[in-house]
Amino acid sequence: MAAMDDEKAIDLVTKKRKLQNEEEACHQIETRANLGNMDIVGVLNDNPREKCLFLHTKISGDDAVVLMEKTPFDTKTLTQLISQDTSLKETLKNDIYSTFETHLPYHLNVVKTTLIHPATAKHLSKYRQQKTFAICETEEMYKNVTKPFLQEQKFSIQWVYNILDKKSESDRIVFEDACPKDGFVLLPDMKWNRKDLSQLYLVAIVHNRDILSLRDLNHTHLPMLNNILHKGMEAIRKQFTVMPSKLRVYVHYQPSYHHFHVHFTHLDLDAPGFEADRAHLLQDIIDNITIKSDYYQKKSIVFKLRECDGLYIKYKESRYFN
Amino acid sequence: MAAMDDEKAIDLVTKKRKLQNEEEACHQIETRANLGNMDIVGVLNDNPREKCLFLHTKISGDDAVVLMEKTPFDTKTLTQLISQDTSLKETLKNDIYSTFETHLPYHLNVVKTTLIHPATAKHLSKYRQQKTFAICETEEMYKNVTKPFLQEQKFSIQWVYNILDKKSESDRIVFEDACPKDGFVLLPDMKWNRKDLSQLYLVAIVHNRDILSLRDLNHTHLPMLNNILHKGMEAIRKQFTVMPSKLRVYVHYQPSYHHFHVHFTHLDLDAPGFEADRAHLLQDIIDNITIKSDYYQKKSIVFKLRECDGLYIKYKESRYFN
Repeated sequence: MAAMDDEKAIDLVTKKRKLQNEEEACHQIETRANLGNMDIVGVLNDNPREKCLFLHTKISGDDAVVLMEKTPFDTKTLTQLISQDTSLKETLKNDIYSTFETHLPYHLNVVKTTLIHPATAKHLSKYRQQKTFAICETEEMYKNVTKPFLQEQKFSIQWVYNILDKKSESDRIVFEDACPKDGFVLLPDMKWNRKDLSQLYLVAIVHNRDILSLRDLNHTHLPMLNNILHKGMEAIRKQFTVMPSKLRVYVHYQPSYHHFHVHFTHLDLDAPGFEADRAHLLQDIIDNITIKSDYYQKKSIVFKLRECDGLYIKYKESRYFN
Repeated sequence: MAAMDDEKAIDLVTKKRKLQNEEEACHQIETRANLGNMDIVGVLNDNPREKCLFLHTKISGDDAVVLMEKTPFDTKTLTQLISQDTSLKETLKNDIYSTFETHLPYHLNVVKTTLIHPATAKHLSKYRQQKTFAICETEEMYKNVTKPFLQEQKFSIQWVYNILDKKSESDRIVFEDACPKDGFVLLPDMKWNRKDLSQLYLVAIVHNRDILSLRDLNHTHLPMLNNILHKGMEAIRKQFTVMPSKLRVYVHYQPSYHHFHVHFTHLDLDAPGFEADRAHLLQDIIDNITIKSDYYQKKSIVFKLRECDGLYIKYKESRYFN
């Protein structure tokens, strides 16, 4: 037993020495690039849940953006993680539960840093945490603030028409119902690689060009909405063997572009955009319009705006926040 | 200029030596506890977005659970983070964008580890990633599957009655409307530290003891619901100076306990539980009941179940997934 312990101790000392040599070698090579020549201007954003930090800095007087993100655990290095090279300091013990401040071996302690230098004002604004506000948009507010703003904007949605007219992305179409009134095309969202099924993300874009958003839907659109829900789910079951009980089918309000479209995502996809103040389940939309044809014309709808959104400025001007 | 560089170099060597000494000292103390005596059974859960890893291990033949989570960046240590002690290895350079594999100074490289030992089967199941399924619960399914299951369970909610009767947590109450029919108590959720306002989380628990969930609400509850929405928001504005436009007010379906309660959280709180297939905005609930008193008795409601949920097993037995 004692011999075993001695052996283990020698083994441990050897391992530590090896590790220290490695660390020093790394340190010497890597410190060629360093952050010591930067001045910190401030924190643009700090996300404790995702372990990210975005900084505004200056390098030789120029603006720079530094994006730091701790890397995920790598399940391929489990035996190195759970080893004598990982050190633990007990911080709490209560019955069967203990907590430890832990230091992993050097090579598992990686942070991914992205540097943008020189950075423009647009970069700074892109990475700066925006103040957000909840709006409870009444029927009147939609008519007097939101709709006039949308009409003023006239964002180009030519890229949507190119898809519907098969002028682009026609090879990506997964399913089509060609009916000009109730039909749609279904294709993978740009964010999905078409491989990992738990990350599945498709979008149904309708052929009808007259629907700006949820606000325009009424009972005349029920055949189209039922079409999308049932034919969309069926196409996904056939082509990707993903069952309806693994799918979320929803619409954004406000949408990111004003031509009616529906999102199909996998239940396990942990992506933003499914919050209850942005996502409206297609099943609920169909039920609500069936109960009351003008449900979405009359209903107050809650949504979130960021300080930098043009619509936020309109709401501020309309004295909504007073 | 050369003298400056020499000075810097000496400074750097001194710093590094100090750091190495520190690291060695830490290493010696901390390796008293180590993970080398564990056998890995498998990965229970791996969350790359949140940088968490949950492992099933064995210690001397007993089951153990190891929860590891990388710690968030600490904005109080910015100058140590952006310093010569942080080493960088360039992995990509393209125009103004560069990425680096980065190693932070030893004391900033902390992982929080929680050890549960010996762990029971319940612990293992609690931390194991569960398959999830979307259920679209019709009126009939609620009557035939969900409600009988809830009545079978009879979870104790004595702790809720203790709050309402001022037998416990009475010092934590932020606001009360004592009316037994339409009243409620408002108090901070256990997850909130009552300090950081952007993490604000309160719960309103109603005095009425007859409402299991959203499914039981009708027009007779409108005075209670309006009470909670308006008096709750007003109490939060007064006591915490958080405006209604910074709040989310919602109800879970399924709830985690079956005594009617409403969540108030800050818009910036990035917490789970606000997905569109779990959270129902109180404003929407009030509007829907106003349109149709039996809206929540008749309406199909989509929610998510995990494989380990008792209710999932009931739905499986009812052949819902066939």
